[in-house]
Amino acid sequence: MLTMQEALARLTAYWTEHGALIVQPMNTEVGAGTLNPATFLRVLGPEPWRVVYVEPSVRPDDSRYGENPNRLQTHTQLQVILKPDPGNPQELYLGSLAAIGIDVAAHDVRFVEDNWASPALGAWGLGWEVWLDGLEITQFTYFQQAGGINLDPVSVEITYGIERIIMALQDKQHFKEIEYAPGVSYGEVFGQSEYEMSRYYLDDADIEANRKLLDIYAGEAQRMIDAGLPVPAHSYVLKCSQAFNVLDSRGAVSTAERAAEFGRMRRLAGEVAKLWVARRAELEHPLGLVVDREPAPVPATVQTGDGPRTLVFEIGTEELPPAELRNAREQLQRLVTEGLAGTRLAHGDVRVFGTPRRLIAVVPEVAAREDDHVRTVRGPKTQAPAKAVEGFARGHGVDPGALATEEFNGVEHYVLHKEETGQPAPQVLAEVLAKVTGGLRSAKNMRWNDPKLAFSRPLRWLTALWGDDVVPVAVSTLAAGRRTRLLRTANPPVVDIASAETFVETLGVNGIVADHEDRRELIVVGAQDLVYPDGRVDVTGEAALIDQITDLVEQPLPLLGTFDEGYLTLPDAVLTTVMRKHQRYLPVRDEDGKLLPMFVTVANGPVDVELVRTGNEAVLRARYEDARFFYRADLDTPLADMKARLDRLTFTDKLGSMADRAGRIGSLAITLGERLGLGSPVLARAAELVKFDLGSQLVTEMTSLAGVMAREYASHAGESRAVAEAVFEAELPRNTGDSLPRTVPGALLSLADRLDLVAGLAATVGLPTGSSDPFAVRRAVLGLLAVHRSTPELASLSLLDALALAAQPVPVSPEVLAAVGDFLAKRLEQALTEEGQPVDRVRAVLPHFARPSVADTLLAQLDVAVEDEAFAAVAAAIQRARRIVPDGTPAGYDVGVLKEPAELALHEAVTAVVLPSEPDLTQFVAATRGLVEPVNTFFDDVLVMADDPAIRAARLGLLVAVRDLGDGLLDWPQLRL
Amino acid sequence: MLTMQEALARLTAYWTEHGALIVQPMNTEVGAGTLNPATFLRVLGPEPWRVVYVEPSVRPDDSRYGENPNRLQTHTQLQVILKPDPGNPQELYLGSLAAIGIDVAAHDVRFVEDNWASPALGAWGLGWEVWLDGLEITQFTYFQQAGGINLDPVSVEITYGIERIIMALQDKQHFKEIEYAPGVSYGEVFGQSEYEMSRYYLDDADIEANRKLLDIYAGEAQRMIDAGLPVPAHSYVLKCSQAFNVLDSRGAVSTAERAAEFGRMRRLAGEVAKLWVARRAELEHPLGLVVDREPAPVPATVQTGDGPRTLVFEIGTEELPPAELRNAREQLQRLVTEGLAGTRLAHGDVRVFGTPRRLIAVVPEVAAREDDHVRTVRGPKTQAPAKAVEGFARGHGVDPGALATEEFNGVEHYVLHKEETGQPAPQVLAEVLAKVTGGLRSAKNMRWNDPKLAFSRPLRWLTALWGDDVVPVAVSTLAAGRRTRLLRTANPPVVDIASAETFVETLGVNGIVADHEDRRELIVVGAQDLVYPDGRVDVTGEAALIDQITDLVEQPLPLLGTFDEGYLTLPDAVLTTVMRKHQRYLPVRDEDGKLLPMFVTVANGPVDVELVRTGNEAVLRARYEDARFFYRADLDTPLADMKARLDRLTFTDKLGSMADRAGRIGSLAITLGERLGLGSPVLARAAELVKFDLGSQLVTEMTSLAGVMAREYASHAGESRAVAEAVFEAELPRNTGDSLPRTVPGALLSLADRLDLVAGLAATVGLPTGSSDPFAVRRAVLGLLAVHRSTPELASLSLLDALALAAQPVPVSPEVLAAVGDFLAKRLEQALTEEGQPVDRVRAVLPHFARPSVADTLLAQLDVAVEDEAFAAVAAAIQRARRIVPDGTPAGYDVGVLKEPAELALHEAVTAVVLPSEPDLTQFVAATRGLVEPVNTFFDDVLVMADDPAIRAARLGLLVAVRDLGDGLLDWPQLRL
Repeated sequence: MLTMQEALARLTAYWTEHGALIVQPMNTEVGAGTLNPATFLRVLGPEPWRVVYVEPSVRPDDSRYGENPNRLQTHTQLQVILKPDPGNPQELYLGSLAAIGIDVAAHDVRFVEDNWASPALGAWGLGWEVWLDGLEITQFTYFQQAGGINLDPVSVEITYGIERIIMALQDKQHFKEIEYAPGVSYGEVFGQSEYEMSRYYLDDADIEANRKLLDIYAGEAQRMIDAGLPVPAHSYVLKCSQAFNVLDSRGAVSTAERAAEFGRMRRLAGEVAKLWVARRAELEHPLGLVVDREPAPVPATVQTGDGPRTLVFEIGTEELPPAELRNAREQLQRLVTEGLAGTRLAHGDVRVFGTPRRLIAVVPEVAAREDDHVRTVRGPKTQAPAKAVEGFARGHGVDPGALATEEFNGVEHYVLHKEETGQPAPQVLAEVLAKVTGGLRSAKNMRWNDPKLAFSRPLRWLTALWGDDVVPVAVSTLAAGRRTRLLRTANPPVVDIASAETFVETLGVNGIVADHEDRRELIVVGAQDLVYPDGRVDVTGEAALIDQITDLVEQPLPLLGTFDEGYLTLPDAVLTTVMRKHQRYLPVRDEDGKLLPMFVTVANGPVDVELVRTGNEAVLRARYEDARFFYRADLDTPLADMKARLDRLTFTDKLGSMADRAGRIGSLAITLGERLGLGSPVLARAAELVKFDLGSQLVTEMTSLAGVMAREYASHAGESRAVAEAVFEAELPRNTGDSLPRTVPGALLSLADRLDLVAGLAATVGLPTGSSDPFAVRRAVLGLLAVHRSTPELASLSLLDALALAAQPVPVSPEVLAAVGDFLAKRLEQALTEEGQPVDRVRAVLPHFARPSVADTLLAQLDVAVEDEAFAAVAAAIQRARRIVPDGTPAGYDVGVLKEPAELALHEAVTAVVLPSEPDLTQFVAATRGLVEPVNTFFDDVLVMADDPAIRAARLGLLVAVRDLGDGLLDWPQLRL
Repeated sequence: MLTMQEALARLTAYWTEHGALIVQPMNTEVGAGTLNPATFLRVLGPEPWRVVYVEPSVRPDDSRYGENPNRLQTHTQLQVILKPDPGNPQELYLGSLAAIGIDVAAHDVRFVEDNWASPALGAWGLGWEVWLDGLEITQFTYFQQAGGINLDPVSVEITYGIERIIMALQDKQHFKEIEYAPGVSYGEVFGQSEYEMSRYYLDDADIEANRKLLDIYAGEAQRMIDAGLPVPAHSYVLKCSQAFNVLDSRGAVSTAERAAEFGRMRRLAGEVAKLWVARRAELEHPLGLVVDREPAPVPATVQTGDGPRTLVFEIGTEELPPAELRNAREQLQRLVTEGLAGTRLAHGDVRVFGTPRRLIAVVPEVAAREDDHVRTVRGPKTQAPAKAVEGFARGHGVDPGALATEEFNGVEHYVLHKEETGQPAPQVLAEVLAKVTGGLRSAKNMRWNDPKLAFSRPLRWLTALWGDDVVPVAVSTLAAGRRTRLLRTANPPVVDIASAETFVETLGVNGIVADHEDRRELIVVGAQDLVYPDGRVDVTGEAALIDQITDLVEQPLPLLGTFDEGYLTLPDAVLTTVMRKHQRYLPVRDEDGKLLPMFVTVANGPVDVELVRTGNEAVLRARYEDARFFYRADLDTPLADMKARLDRLTFTDKLGSMADRAGRIGSLAITLGERLGLGSPVLARAAELVKFDLGSQLVTEMTSLAGVMAREYASHAGESRAVAEAVFEAELPRNTGDSLPRTVPGALLSLADRLDLVAGLAATVGLPTGSSDPFAVRRAVLGLLAVHRSTPELASLSLLDALALAAQPVPVSPEVLAAVGDFLAKRLEQALTEEGQPVDRVRAVLPHFARPSVADTLLAQLDVAVEDEAFAAVAAAIQRARRIVPDGTPAGYDVGVLKEPAELALHEAVTAVVLPSEPDLTQFVAATRGLVEPVNTFFDDVLVMADDPAIRAARLGLLVAVRDLGDGLLDWPQLRL
């Protein structure tokens, strides 16, 4: 049996054979091999670097006392950096798996999108997790940025999770059973340490001490930056990170504090990176420089036929993320269509296909050459001097006599009619396809070893055929040929395509299903077959997941797996979150919709089915084991104890602990309830409990379950259904489009939560600016508005008043409250316009931003009112009055001066109006309907600006009264009628 | 060329082939692989453990900005632990050198005594540094204790210094030139880090921050100990150690503070170790248990001759330290001689020989069997009942009639005369030699894989021959044979000995010179030959070193090496300290005694001379380079700046910085000088400078040069010779037997230094107790006494008064001062008796402990006085008076009551005595000479205890006056006359 230490030695040897040097693990605790300066610093700058090293990676959060089969507070990474990208890093990687005896063809090895970003390091990259039968065994990343600096050249980072790989290889169910060295198990060697360090990280680390450490480390890091020493500075950044992680695993870090600390670390890491780059330049790059790759030579142009033939163009990629693949197919369709439209090649309809590893355009009946064509070239005006005319003719190699004339914008010009022969298809297509290739873009683009291209993942080959002939496309370092690549496990893994017409068929013969719909069908039918008759897959409900899976494979092979029925005692949400989100497995349910202990996974290509099934089952078991560990621990914990843990979670320095925050939320909700006459025992109890599940282990682990678990645990603890629902609803909406509270207690708590966040942060940290909104204040404000609007019981509540209430525990200045008001108004404006409301109406109702449901009402009423002539007339009158009355004109007028009947009629009508007490457009229209005629008559008959100043003043005063009728209802000038 | 990373891989592979498992370096900074829990914790307890790992070892003190060719703040150790000792660890080790291509036969590979102790870890072991051509490449240790716990089984620790080994293998002069990986140099990879971390450790680390870190770490360590978690606790102990090392390299740790911190770390490490052992027992020792080796089977007894033959007995050892070898030879002589004396074997004189790897006893003419012998067994008394007599006879298997009678202490007993046949030599010798072997002890004994034996180094084989026959000795796991081992590089490395008579010759033929004197002669003659005629080796002056070298080799091969003349600008003391102390090289001088740029080293056995010479020269070059680095830096530093650095050296928390201490010393010396009328400008200036060289880099590095460098640097800076001498003498005596100050300013400073230390520590830390004396207060007190005694000008100074003066800056209570007085007195008593003074006289003069030179004078006078009858008589009288006079008898008497002539004569004589003002025995004798006769007559004629109370009182009073004559001079009752 391959021991773990032997596996490490073989992988190390494999990579040194491929030119890597070996360094040692970092001598301070790191969460990942990426943090080792051999990665973080070396990926910066222009020097080449190829390295392999082991990195025992410390993740305090993953502490499980050594009990969980798959989670360890210290796991072993093998880290490889290839700088620059060698062009075939995936193939090299698969070779390394073979070096430790993994039969890549028998297993289901997959590259599943996993973009990596380390906010604390200002670093990100695009890549994958590599799955071995559903088990994540490797992180594979093209590093794009580190310390906020764009990387050029790009490095490939390959991080092996050694324990997982070895468990799979040795068929072990628990990491402790790994044969670490001959005759010695992992547990025998590391079991005690795993237990004890878990104790430290989970239970015993002193929070105060680690806080101090964090600050001292940050201080030293800054000092070293100031001293111009990136290496020691980096080491202290790493220590910061570890101290932070310890605090985190001790539950002493709130979301807000996390953002603040990440900000500090990111800033430090950024300065370290800058310094490092500068130092290496000063040292004149001791390891030399990476040289850009040369452009590929353009293939020779050959054209063997002259009838119309099919064009096939394949762009070979490394595994594209499903969403990007969908997007890329559409782009390809558009780019090829437009490209061809720009030529004079006759052709059939463009069809596109795509799998994770290829984008294909097929165009039937592409003519052998462009149509011939007469092009008109405009010359000088006919009035131009003869010299100019001669020059023009000479320039085109013709006699002046050969020129014709033509009128342009009414002016006569000389023109030349040039006959242009259509170009042969390969030549024309080559140009079009090169543009297509270079023009592809994704939502998030990356760079690799090509100096000019950028896309979602590297483009590695081009296959381009027009009929039997290669289309001589060349783009940067890529040149097309007739060879395509098959599944990596095929033997041989490449095939030459005879002609464009046989391309898709050749792929199909080799197992690759190019069409998304075909693959989807294979999956759906295959999955239902597998689970029949015991259960069914909810094809409609899981449509998004199925679409995703479809774009994760080239040759779908659905497999049925099972899990222990015991896990069904876990909440449905927990089980399916794990299946869908973590594993992309399809849940299987019985006819009542109850989960069955089985799942469908879809492998890629021919594999050893039993091997892959067993592997996937083991992965799910481990994940459920983990979830059960927390769930049981939580169920054994009284709600009060969970809630008590909030004491240990800091919200922000100035805003206290999460317990303080929960306390504020609870009492604010109750106060609001009292003010609105919405108080109830349910609200009172829910306010006591609110946010308690942040102290549960499951939510600590799977934050997306916050609220869901609160409801679950509250019910389990015997709380009433209404209370359980309210603590769940307090978390709603969790994101845009999420459901909203349906009960009043839930709505009040949700509101209080968001009011507290906004008021507190506005007063201490400030409102978000630009793209930076670490505390998600925008989302909170949108939530505030949404909840208010969806809860009629809250209509009378002004959010500004509510904010002022929320601001009582923290001193918030009137200026800040005003700024928050502006912010709220802007968000409401944005929300309403995004909902399709005309912007003028939105702005007209915006004065009611603090009671957004009033704005909603007014908008709805406006919808009706604008059809009403009376409203139109009144509104027009109001606006006309505004325009006429100069600013600063006093209200009130001397009725005695008024003489004209129209004046007097209007005066009476205005005086008779009884305005509604609340902003209500319907009532307002009803109340002012009587004005329509007098107003119209007034404007028809009366000259406001009379020569007599007294008369003029009285008339203006009368108009002021008209104008002010609409005050407090709408922002009239905004309204376009 | 073997790259460094390849060498690490090969060594790792070699040890895994020999059953080691591989672990990773520690993920917190450690100074050595020993600190990794894979060593520190795993050597504890009964579980087996065999491990190999790389450990980048951080030594902030070794920071040199990457400039020094051989010193790095982070160097790479390869660490191997073999638990239990496999019995042949040295051979396994040499095999590992071969695995990386080192031709062990061509190089001079040596095991040079180096006992390892880590005060901070409560750990120690015995072993060697392994030298490759004079270069220390490996530390090889038999671990005896860790965390204060005795280790059973013992572990072998092998620590390779990889950079040094690779530099030697690749023939590089600077570590940066090492080929680390193919085409990549060490400097290219690690140069920047080396520079920057040096900057941190030497210049930029924040002292306050690191002090805080140290305290926080210690706090967490203690908390984890209290929580029963040795693994995290250990990790924090390591962090303590690193923080401490950073402070140290920043020059922020005084000797005293070092002792205190080591104490804390030792205590923590001890608790960690205890906890670990307990936890492993609770876990039932997951890795199993080491089983003791079985005793060796006793060889068969064969005796082929019956004439007297030579006995040869060889105990094969691993390399013994020279001092232990000397001691072991003497022991062997005694044990064999005594052992044989306890037999009835006729034999010649015992001769012993020894080399580092063998102890040999040769005894000629050992008879083939013991003489026959009649033994007398004592039975019951003749008066005893018959039954008892019969029982005795039956017990010995004889008739009662066969018993004889004999008288014991005048009582008649039955006896039995038993005829005992002498036993054959092999049998008798086997018993004797087994006892000899088991009885060997060294000053510091260790244990290895033998369950019963203990010695300076492991005993690995026994060769025992009587003539042609093997003496069947068996001791624990060792059994003798006729096979001996030769040099490890011999081929084959063992030889069978035909007969005892040919043993020493056989060794000689194989190059091994068994006799110390022969080896010494070879070295001396060889060395002088090598340097003739340019220079000479000072054979007398270097006698101790030559003796040491002689016992470092079995086959001496002196080699001449040279070094760059440029280094001769370094002070002689620096050059020779390096040569003698670090390298065991013999310095070479010209006829004027000036050093020449050459040295003699002595290799062991046949080697490639050029290779070994080159290697040794490179080592010396590196060491001198290092020294020059510091020396030059120091010369460029004004004395005031060096002195200013003392501010940064804490002496102890309560006693301030080393600058404070130097200040106290200076002003105390001046005060004392004034009091004694010994003030001078020299004293004043020297007092300003005193201890400044502790701020120099060379002394920081080579502390044994403190004072020497002060003189050097002071002279260089233009101070007068007297001042330079005084700052040198201030440090004297540095140890027992060291020279003492010869000038008064030097003596005063030396005294002040020690007074300050003693007073300060007594007041704050307390006086040393038991064997613990971390601040060397005992040595300081001995220094005080020695300086006082050797400086006549100080005779009138009471050390108690001086201590009281020294105590002024720190409040010292009278009780503490009294305790210091007692302590002083005890040390003086000890010193004087060790000098050979009779203990009674020493105690008699001890009241003068505070002025030890007075005690000296009195002792010298006593020496004369005891020959003087007058003194004898007076002394006898005084003592007689003491005995007679009851305690509490008042002084004074009524002269009028005295009537007897003898009474009156004594009264007159006593009254006439004029005692000397100072304690002076000669004057005292002269002054009391007149008493002799009256006293004698008084005792002859007068009955003191007269019946008449008045007379009795007067006579007693008279005796009180006699008794009190000697008061303040001697403690008379102590004196035995």
